[in-house]
Amino acid sequence: EVSFDPKEHQHLRYNPLRDSWVLVSAHRMKRPWAGQVEKPPEEHVTRHDPCNPLCPGNTRANGEVNPNYDSTFVFDNDFPALQPDAPDPGSDQHTLFQSKAARGVCKVMCFHPWSDITLPLMKKEDIVKVIDKWAELVEELGATYPWVQIFENKGATMGCSNPHPHCQVWASNFLPNEPALSDRCQREYYQKHEEPLLLQYAKQEAEKKVRVVVESSDWLAVVPYWATWPYQLLLLPRRHVLRINDLNAEERAGLADIMKRLLTKYDNLFEVSFPYSMGWHGAPTGPHLREDNSHWQLHAHYYPPLLRSATVKKFMVGYEMLAQEQRDLTPEQAAEKLRNLPEEHYKDRQN
Amino acid sequence: EVSFDPKEHQHLRYNPLRDSWVLVSAHRMKRPWAGQVEKPPEEHVTRHDPCNPLCPGNTRANGEVNPNYDSTFVFDNDFPALQPDAPDPGSDQHTLFQSKAARGVCKVMCFHPWSDITLPLMKKEDIVKVIDKWAELVEELGATYPWVQIFENKGATMGCSNPHPHCQVWASNFLPNEPALSDRCQREYYQKHEEPLLLQYAKQEAEKKVRVVVESSDWLAVVPYWATWPYQLLLLPRRHVLRINDLNAEERAGLADIMKRLLTKYDNLFEVSFPYSMGWHGAPTGPHLREDNSHWQLHAHYYPPLLRSATVKKFMVGYEMLAQEQRDLTPEQAAEKLRNLPEEHYKDRQN
Ligand SMILES: O=P(O)(O)O[C@H]1O[C@H](CO)[C@@H](O)[C@H](O)[C@H]1O
Ligand SMILES: O=P(O)(O)O[C@H]1O[C@H](CO)[C@@H](O)[C@H](O)[C@H]1O
Repeated sequence: EVSFDPKEHQHLRYNPLRDSWVLVSAHRMKRPWAGQVEKPPEEHVTRHDPCNPLCPGNTRANGEVNPNYDSTFVFDNDFPALQPDAPDPGSDQHTLFQSKAARGVCKVMCFHPWSDITLPLMKKEDIVKVIDKWAELVEELGATYPWVQIFENKGATMGCSNPHPHCQVWASNFLPNEPALSDRCQREYYQKHEEPLLLQYAKQEAEKKVRVVVESSDWLAVVPYWATWPYQLLLLPRRHVLRINDLNAEERAGLADIMKRLLTKYDNLFEVSFPYSMGWHGAPTGPHLREDNSHWQLHAHYYPPLLRSATVKKFMVGYEMLAQEQRDLTPEQAAEKLRNLPEEHYKDRQN
Repeated sequence: EVSFDPKEHQHLRYNPLRDSWVLVSAHRMKRPWAGQVEKPPEEHVTRHDPCNPLCPGNTRANGEVNPNYDSTFVFDNDFPALQPDAPDPGSDQHTLFQSKAARGVCKVMCFHPWSDITLPLMKKEDIVKVIDKWAELVEELGATYPWVQIFENKGATMGCSNPHPHCQVWASNFLPNEPALSDRCQREYYQKHEEPLLLQYAKQEAEKKVRVVVESSDWLAVVPYWATWPYQLLLLPRRHVLRINDLNAEERAGLADIMKRLLTKYDNLFEVSFPYSMGWHGAPTGPHLREDNSHWQLHAHYYPPLLRSATVKKFMVGYEMLAQEQRDLTPEQAAEKLRNLPEEHYKDRQN
């Protein structure tokens, strides 16, 4: 009888935040790759491009002129997927043709006045300003909207169409699919175990250590046991915190520090500005502010696509779209690689 | 009061097969695109490449020599994500660290001996041979495995690493997430309405017409009301059919015909070999063969990524990964575009 080795033997792992399974087939990394290669990100972005609508002082599509901002800068997306005033599609629908009103706002938030900088290369005090602005927006938009989604698409591979460092904030009058699922899973766990799912999880990971990438007294970043993307990360505070605006000043400074460390490791992995989509999940807001949300724990998901090198990504296609997500290395292998990378950015080393 | 116009006003639509919602924001098509452009597929693939492991007579990675096949050809994937004999990870696990044994087989199926042909350019009688082989594999692998996933990744954009026309068939000892969800949704509908969900849906779409792309006496292809990918299609028989191996000879001929028609329209849309991932969903097999699966209806999903042109795709990234899928044109607009395209392939017209 052969004994089980996760690196050699495919198996399923359960994602308790999404109530679903991932197929881990680490031995598949051995297959040759002759498929699509991504263009590595442009290394020479100009600091101030007079045509880039995200730069200070420039004019945007709607004719508005950006201020000469010197820190973060937030404005309304000129092509929003959500607007505050869309009419209701109306009721009286067949059960197979159901629609609902969707209302909200979409904001863009620049991280820094320079186009040629990214979060891991920014000073910690400037990252704190980003965090403060995130908290402010959740406070402000969350006063009425049930969900405020902060997300960053980084790199052309992740559909980002502007190299200027920025994220987006979309607030909606509905709880979207993903947070609705996560809310249900965390709630069910809490009802059964009388403890928030992610607090118990963080405790166990901090002890087990094999999937920890970076940690500090306040924060923990792990490749989750159920990761689907090759170098996926889950970042969460050690204290029970419901929403990003509940973080105290010390925790915000700690977050800036751990973000800089983990994003530096990301960039160092293939010595390239590492593409990803990331976003924050915290307890729902608006009408949910009046409910008990003790089952929630604030966390960020990082979903980076690169698998083998700066130019070969993991494709979540046929089997993944139609059947189930599948990964080509174990989360423990990914965590070990990231953990062992230096915390000095390769660009700082070069200079 | 402005009255509701789905092309102008964002709204949510319900997907009854996945119990989830999609955000439709058609007005967003107006935004400029300066993001990533895809390489259009190579137009000059050689018919027989002596180095391509999928061509007749060539040697594969494991040293095996392909026969000089002149129709379809099936072989075991040389780098399978699922193998028949993986050991069990063992029980006695914490609820947040659950794993399960995964066993199965992965097959590759070539559609045709030539590398420079695709399904829409093949003769109908040759497409029938592909369908017969699909049916045979579901019959054979489905005798023991609960799920047999037939899928095709077409084009480098969809992670396909070999231009030779082929699909894959992965059979597993578990019901993967997507079919498990679809099974639950169809079952619940059936229990409530005493009719299969997709049969009722097909009837309504055939009457409404607005989302129909191609149809015949036996088959119907629509851009589903809840489509997430820009030109997504749902293809299904009009008769109540549980699995692909239950199709009779006439229905298989009809399927070859409608596949050729819809894939020709796909290629004609941007005059490019249209990339997509597609796959079949039918009633589960193996131990489920002994159960009542009347709630199921056989269908194929086509998930194509292109949005604006041969080189600009839709990115399912930040908001889509972390919150909810969002589309940039209405399913009715997509259906109308596809419906109005000629059924003669642009390459045949050029010759
Ligand atoms: O098996 P292939 O064609 O080498 O690989 C492709 O399809 C698989 C199944 O959808 C995916 O897991 C891979 O990421 C993709 O590149
Ligand atoms: O809003 P952007 O950056 O133009 O667009 C990008 O992010 C959006 C939100 O994830 C996606 O819907 C788009 O497909 C993507 O290209």
